[in-house]
Amino acid sequence: MTQPPIILASNSPRRQQLLSQIGLDFEVIPGNVNEDFSIDLSPRNFAEHYATKKAKDVAKHYPDHLVIGADTIVVLNGQILGKPADESESYTMLSSLSGETHTVVTGVSLQWISKNIDIIFSENTLVTFNSLSSQEIHYYIDNYHPLDKAGSYGIQDWFAVCVNNIDGCFYNVMGFPLSAFYQQYKKITANDSP
Amino acid sequence: MTQPPIILASNSPRRQQLLSQIGLDFEVIPGNVNEDFSIDLSPRNFAEHYATKKAKDVAKHYPDHLVIGADTIVVLNGQILGKPADESESYTMLSSLSGETHTVVTGVSLQWISKNIDIIFSENTLVTFNSLSSQEIHYYIDNYHPLDKAGSYGIQDWFAVCVNNIDGCFYNVMGFPLSAFYQQYKKITANDSP
Repeated sequence: MTQPPIILASNSPRRQQLLSQIGLDFEVIPGNVNEDFSIDLSPRNFAEHYATKKAKDVAKHYPDHLVIGADTIVVLNGQILGKPADESESYTMLSSLSGETHTVVTGVSLQWISKNIDIIFSENTLVTFNSLSSQEIHYYIDNYHPLDKAGSYGIQDWFAVCVNNIDGCFYNVMGFPLSAFYQQYKKITANDSP
Repeated sequence: MTQPPIILASNSPRRQQLLSQIGLDFEVIPGNVNEDFSIDLSPRNFAEHYATKKAKDVAKHYPDHLVIGADTIVVLNGQILGKPADESESYTMLSSLSGETHTVVTGVSLQWISKNIDIIFSENTLVTFNSLSSQEIHYYIDNYHPLDKAGSYGIQDWFAVCVNNIDGCFYNVMGFPLSAFYQQYKKITANDSP
């Protein structure tokens, strides 16, 4: 199985782990993009917009590489939650998500300039939390410092015990929708993937 | 956070990884139990029966430990799929699961003799596969040798790209329902867990 040269335009260690999980070789070159949460876009358009900005920021320098950008947000009652600014905001976010169902949206952008490939899609997963006690939220923040995560939780760490149900793609919640990506990747690489 | 002395009565590296993920310390002492798939039990009763056999086989020697047994099966159209005997059966299983929705059932048994604790429960997760090509199934079997896994797949390896959707607990599909376990564990340890 041959593969094209791939760049992951993201610093997220979870995304790096997930691409490795499916056997891809890649370089990591993060795109230099600041998110503006006051921008007037629907959650889906927001995630796809920033995934594309991240991918294009890198792809312009590497036209012969398949560049992968991604952006993950948490949406509760129509409102976008990004990464918390500090522990106090982390507490507020987790309290608001407690006992509720929210949507995790990951936008993905695949840019390969020399092949004229410009693909953008997004994936939604519904996530339902258990009711969390104040003690549990404090325990999590104090021990896992989830400030680098959209919605302030990592489904792949201790917080797993707080998640009652997911409906959709699990890996989307971790930050990259492996199955949806693979469907696109198969088309791009045609006869090279299994 | 103090914890009781815990024994995991399972050889599964996935279960060991999952208990470590939520910060528990434990010893691994597998129960010596052979599964008989001709036994006349419903899927749920089957998984709970063998989880309990595994836990009790160890607990009788360690009355002062909380002993955890678990058994995971895949159920397609009412039929229980265990681990495939060989690559040919692996191919047959994956072909039958292709494009379909099946149920993963994990039975869990918690035995702590000196505290009179005898808890048995099970968790169901619905898993829907993409339609798999013969090439994809062969690629997976040749490269990942999934003979040690119920249903012949590991959702935590390359096979992730073949899973279209899950509804329920992801970790249940890996072999241990972390969230449901934690709810019971909290009751057992009362004021010691967060």
